[in-house]
Amino acid sequence: MIKTDILIIGAGPTGLFTVFEAGLLKLKTHLIDALPQPGGQCSEIYPKKPIYDIPGFPEILAGDLVNNLMEQIKPFEPGFTLGDRAETIEKLEDGTFVVTTLRGVKHNAPVVAIAGGLGSFEPRKPPIPNIADFEDKGVAYIIRDPEVYRDKRVVIAGGGDSALDWTIFLAEVASEVTLVHRRNEFRGALDSVERVAELTKLGKVNLITEAEVKEIKGDAHVTGLGIKHKTEGDIHVDTDYFIPLFGLSPKLGPIGNWGLEIEKNAIKVDNSYDYQTNIPGIYAIGDVNTYKGKLKLILSGFHEAAIMCQSAYQRIFPDKKYVMKYTTVGGVEGFDGSKKEAKKEVVKAIV
Amino acid sequence: MIKTDILIIGAGPTGLFTVFEAGLLKLKTHLIDALPQPGGQCSEIYPKKPIYDIPGFPEILAGDLVNNLMEQIKPFEPGFTLGDRAETIEKLEDGTFVVTTLRGVKHNAPVVAIAGGLGSFEPRKPPIPNIADFEDKGVAYIIRDPEVYRDKRVVIAGGGDSALDWTIFLAEVASEVTLVHRRNEFRGALDSVERVAELTKLGKVNLITEAEVKEIKGDAHVTGLGIKHKTEGDIHVDTDYFIPLFGLSPKLGPIGNWGLEIEKNAIKVDNSYDYQTNIPGIYAIGDVNTYKGKLKLILSGFHEAAIMCQSAYQRIFPDKKYVMKYTTVGGVEGFDGSKKEAKKEVVKAIV
Ligand SMILES: Cc1cc2nc3c(=O)[nH]c(=O)nc-3n(C[C@H](O)[C@H](O)[C@H](O)COP(=O)(O)OP(=O)(O)OC[C@H]3O[C@@H](n4cnc5c(N)ncnc54)[C@H](O)[C@@H]3O)c2cc1C
Ligand SMILES: Cc1cc2nc3c(=O)[nH]c(=O)nc-3n(C[C@H](O)[C@H](O)[C@H](O)COP(=O)(O)OP(=O)(O)OC[C@H]3O[C@@H](n4cnc5c(N)ncnc54)[C@H](O)[C@@H]3O)c2cc1C
Repeated sequence: MIKTDILIIGAGPTGLFTVFEAGLLKLKTHLIDALPQPGGQCSEIYPKKPIYDIPGFPEILAGDLVNNLMEQIKPFEPGFTLGDRAETIEKLEDGTFVVTTLRGVKHNAPVVAIAGGLGSFEPRKPPIPNIADFEDKGVAYIIRDPEVYRDKRVVIAGGGDSALDWTIFLAEVASEVTLVHRRNEFRGALDSVERVAELTKLGKVNLITEAEVKEIKGDAHVTGLGIKHKTEGDIHVDTDYFIPLFGLSPKLGPIGNWGLEIEKNAIKVDNSYDYQTNIPGIYAIGDVNTYKGKLKLILSGFHEAAIMCQSAYQRIFPDKKYVMKYTTVGGVEGFDGSKKEAKKEVVKAIV
Repeated sequence: MIKTDILIIGAGPTGLFTVFEAGLLKLKTHLIDALPQPGGQCSEIYPKKPIYDIPGFPEILAGDLVNNLMEQIKPFEPGFTLGDRAETIEKLEDGTFVVTTLRGVKHNAPVVAIAGGLGSFEPRKPPIPNIADFEDKGVAYIIRDPEVYRDKRVVIAGGGDSALDWTIFLAEVASEVTLVHRRNEFRGALDSVERVAELTKLGKVNLITEAEVKEIKGDAHVTGLGIKHKTEGDIHVDTDYFIPLFGLSPKLGPIGNWGLEIEKNAIKVDNSYDYQTNIPGIYAIGDVNTYKGKLKLILSGFHEAAIMCQSAYQRIFPDKKYVMKYTTVGGVEGFDGSKKEAKKEVVKAIV
């Protein structure tokens, strides 16, 4: 059982900054995220795009914002359960919570902060009847470790950045890469489209457009695919892996069944104080919450996290009084023994 | 009469970021600040000190944060009335407000955003009976334009960073610089203390410690000072200027008499929605406001500004519906004709 002070569900910008605010209060944190990497929407949907409304950054790439946040929270040594979804919550007699993931990992904490954004990112699956039978048996919707595909035959399906980028990457790793797309036109960064065109000409990528995968063949593992082509009819392709990359779409998912008050697919919170939900000890911050005037912006989650951590502190230490110190004045003491602080003034006589 | 959409009182980080959030909504802004420069506490009190809790910046000097904000808001061309204090407010029949400064400058807007921090920065004045008679006649508490002192005799009083830094600066500008301090010990950056010691040795600064200015002499203008020394008794120093730099202390000041609900020296606002005060159309954001759970942090003002601007938009355009667009998606269109936007994706056929 993983134990921590504040269990954070969702490692998007809000969840990450919560680690920092909690750390200033000497509270430990652990994050759970369905994605294999931290950063939420910023990492999954638009890592290479600029954001213009982060205060103090006239322009910053979403991926760089996540990197900066990771650096900022490093001294507080957060724990991570990645690539796994928070599934159930249970309240123990001592008032603490146990959150269990899809893979059965248990986490225990007196405070739970849901920073789940638009929900846990779930892959959009193509409508192939027996696809579920082949999940983890040759079918994957997210590429976690590209080495799995070394010297194997791979079919990727999709027409966006993910499909293009992984096709380019795996062309150097897999023994054979086929890219199947419904249309002739791809939608993505110009570079990527051009590179795939080049690899196709060089024979390093086998491109099948105006076609859809309709059937998965195999027994214990994928061995081939049945593809329907617009003009040529049915095609068979032998392969070891099938990777449909049709995007991930966020779903509030299991959190919707935790007994929390839900409104417009988001969790209602008390914004007149501390962003607590209707269940004391469970907070909701960032895109996942809703209240009158809510703005689903990154800067909102930062402020909500700071306020929420103060309230969590009171819940965990009902008898202590926390006296806020500016970071400029008190510095930042990491759990890893690091200390950042402003240069001290001197008091010194002249002559 | 200066006319704008949102009149912002206070050009600290909160006021500055309000310009940006208003600009995204195509609303014009104008800022009033008692200080001669923008940045509020960050510029006046600790420009060279690091802040560690601005989200996305593991470390940033307060002065650099202000510079970044100035760059971020530049496309929205805010107006500035600096070095002047907002004194009175009046509501016109058309529902708009007129704010008049100490120097009589009038500003008209349908919305007023008070981002006054801990109050307008007012100099701490030494207790010399006739000092008020010499203000602007040789006595100054803030140095606005150092060129005024070129080839003149100047006496500075104080023992902190301001007194040290201006002594160093004016040593190259004035014909004669005297630094008077009550104690032998100075409190400031080590560099500055050492540099003043050096200039004193070189005879470029005339240092008088354990002494206090007790009397200002002159008629239409300062001509000399009476100084009381701990051991040597009364000293007379001829001078053209006397600059006591005992720090600026913020005072809520005239805003306290505007009929706003005040609590703990701050303005009560409705944090369950839009940070509006008890007077519709007047908002209070950043350090100047108070509500349950309020954190006087820079990141709070940023979020409050974003929410407040949405409500201001509804007030100014009651019939329009604003549809929020992410800056990443919609870009940022400046009033100066500039346009920032993410590189567009292409939709392109391969082969
Ligand atoms: C194209 C695009 C452009 C944008 N541009 C801007 C912009 O310019 N400015 C701006 O301020 N905002 C912008 N946004 C919005 C911004 O990205 C979000 O406001 C921000 O990501 C919200 O952060 P968050 O941490 O609250 O949630 P998210 O970033 O959504 O992260 C939530 C995380 O929680 C995880 N999660 C949820 N439920 C579970 C569960 N049960 N178990 C495990 N993990 C779970 C998800 O997998 C996800 O990683 C943009 C969004 C998009 C898509
Ligand atoms: C030494 C120190 C260290 C700090 N460290 C941190 C930190 O690490 N992290 C953090 O988040 N915060 C820190 N703070 C606090 C932070 O600086 C404030 O939260 C922030 O400056 C508030 O911004 P603001 O824009 O609301 O107000 P301010 O910065 O106070 O600006 C308000 C402005 O309004 C002007 N004004 C007020 N009334 C009037 C009037 N009637 N007419 C004209 N002008 C007026 C004032 O002159 C002032 O310039 C620190 C503060 C200090 C002093």
